[in-house]
Amino acid sequence: MPVRFTDHIASLPATIPFVGPETAERQRGKQFLARIGANESVFGPSPRAIAAMAASLGEIWKYCDPENHDLRAGIAKHYGISPDNVVIGEGIDGLLGLGVRLFVEQGVSVVMPDGAYPTFAFHVNGFAGNLVKVPLVDDRESIDDMLEAARRYKARILYLSNPNNPMGTFWEAGDLRRLADNLPDGCVLFLDEAYCEFAPEGSLLPVDVSEAKVIRFRTFSKAYGMAGARIGYTIGQADVIAAFNKIRNQYGISRVGQIGALAALGDQDWLKDVCSRTAQGRERLYQIAADNGLKAIPSNTNFVTMDCGRDPVFAKSVLDGLVGQGIFVRMPFAAPGNRCIRVGVGTEADLDLFAQVLPRVLRTVGK
Amino acid sequence: MPVRFTDHIASLPATIPFVGPETAERQRGKQFLARIGANESVFGPSPRAIAAMAASLGEIWKYCDPENHDLRAGIAKHYGISPDNVVIGEGIDGLLGLGVRLFVEQGVSVVMPDGAYPTFAFHVNGFAGNLVKVPLVDDRESIDDMLEAARRYKARILYLSNPNNPMGTFWEAGDLRRLADNLPDGCVLFLDEAYCEFAPEGSLLPVDVSEAKVIRFRTFSKAYGMAGARIGYTIGQADVIAAFNKIRNQYGISRVGQIGALAALGDQDWLKDVCSRTAQGRERLYQIAADNGLKAIPSNTNFVTMDCGRDPVFAKSVLDGLVGQGIFVRMPFAAPGNRCIRVGVGTEADLDLFAQVLPRVLRTVGK
Repeated sequence: MPVRFTDHIASLPATIPFVGPETAERQRGKQFLARIGANESVFGPSPRAIAAMAASLGEIWKYCDPENHDLRAGIAKHYGISPDNVVIGEGIDGLLGLGVRLFVEQGVSVVMPDGAYPTFAFHVNGFAGNLVKVPLVDDRESIDDMLEAARRYKARILYLSNPNNPMGTFWEAGDLRRLADNLPDGCVLFLDEAYCEFAPEGSLLPVDVSEAKVIRFRTFSKAYGMAGARIGYTIGQADVIAAFNKIRNQYGISRVGQIGALAALGDQDWLKDVCSRTAQGRERLYQIAADNGLKAIPSNTNFVTMDCGRDPVFAKSVLDGLVGQGIFVRMPFAAPGNRCIRVGVGTEADLDLFAQVLPRVLRTVGK
Repeated sequence: MPVRFTDHIASLPATIPFVGPETAERQRGKQFLARIGANESVFGPSPRAIAAMAASLGEIWKYCDPENHDLRAGIAKHYGISPDNVVIGEGIDGLLGLGVRLFVEQGVSVVMPDGAYPTFAFHVNGFAGNLVKVPLVDDRESIDDMLEAARRYKARILYLSNPNNPMGTFWEAGDLRRLADNLPDGCVLFLDEAYCEFAPEGSLLPVDVSEAKVIRFRTFSKAYGMAGARIGYTIGQADVIAAFNKIRNQYGISRVGQIGALAALGDQDWLKDVCSRTAQGRERLYQIAADNGLKAIPSNTNFVTMDCGRDPVFAKSVLDGLVGQGIFVRMPFAAPGNRCIRVGVGTEADLDLFAQVLPRVLRTVGK
């Protein structure tokens, strides 16, 4: 080949973090009947956000504001912080990529829970980092094990999501405080809070932008119902945010998304209602699991992870059975989570279908 | 500071490629009367694209297809190539960032024309490359000088835009063929073709995806009139495209943009009409320049660069005068282009206003 990639790029295997439902639909030759596998919000965004986006289309010929000024100002006001503590990116995925690039180069270690967000691992590998995966204990991260790994490997990043994906569990603010306080020197906490709007009171570490070592990632893709708009944001100490600005794609955000996210943020009543409907959907999923002899793990997100009660091969056969019946769900891919399937809160019709299909699948796979 | 960035990030100065018009509007405290400085298309996208995007908003709760399958298939069909020869990104800006990352690390040299696209330079600096800037000759790139620089500095990338921004000039396909054929070993051509739809027949290097060393960047931001949707694409040999896939943000593209771009691509009559209206706008700009004693450089884009006939300080004062009167334009920032201002094709009202304000500004600054 006449082109000369960097050594790292040349050695990097072709990989994708995870396959989208559209790929499966193309393979199946038909659309899913229920799309409850990507932790999207079937309730969608505030009608105000839809209206604002629709109104913005007449100006789609204009580039986005590269400073994301209005959206940053809105987010800053929402949290009582300065816009200098906020950077917008192409979803949490894009921001995790930038964040990793700030800290990671050949041989730098990064600690993450085993089975946690594959896109984070993708970025660490992409920047030649040394990934240290720490197994979950009791279906959530072991704070002590993670801190010990960070010390042993001199990690520069410790990644954790709270509430947790793919298990739906969470840590109390006090435990997270202990984690942050005991990070070894030179190690920052990447706190992925994609599901924070669904979290119970008191389970979120209070926002404190004076603390450089805590870097938080939040999004309009989950509770705000705008996954397709690709708007995530990072909250952090101003010098850390300034570092993101040194390298980010200044024109990476769609104008439609900027405008929609700001409108969505302005409708907290809608958000509250979505969270309430999501809680009802979780209850329904708990009931369906119980009705079928599966043990639902109590969730603080918009999905419920269900213990299928046997080994990963069995869980995979349940998953495949559901997918084969037109229900898009996913499953955790590492132990101990891989004894489970992960089912999103859907519309009533989605959950009716799931309730109807699950027992059939379980009979077929021999539960 | 308790956080430990990589050495390169720590040493990288805070910088932005260029300031958006919204920033200037915030500073002025009022909106521009004519927005003809960012080479956007005031004619907007095909009404079919607008309709498709509007219809897509009801599904904004869904993530984008991470493979960008349908859009890649549409682009591939348009060019008679395979979808494996196409990767979609967050505008050409995003794709240039990925492209640089594939080839550049500490100390790798990259050749670009002096005064060419600042965002490309931003990415090269961001990945610790050694930027070699080659001055323009007669307001376009010197192919021989660039090739010589690539050889001397063992460059891995030679960047060139055709038609050229910020001058509007272009090279014939035969000259570009000579450039590609004479690239030193291990050097690829980044051919930025953002303005290709406006280019005269015969001025574009024919698409040949068997050639790994020619990597092309195109966009829906210019002639297709969708800058706010942030959809660019790279065309190249399949192994090169596969390398982009190893590192790109799989979920970086808005679903609205994916759908809108595909619809825009399907309306080639609209594109043709936009190109024709853009050509008329250029003629009008030539006339305005001539009426005011400025020498317009013949353009093959949606902007016209006008020689103000004196030094960069004078050109800057003309620019500032226009901006002060509510007309957003820009100017090339390196010699020899910085004797000029760059004015985009606008609506009739935009160009009427420009025609009215320019003589007043020239009188004020003492032409």
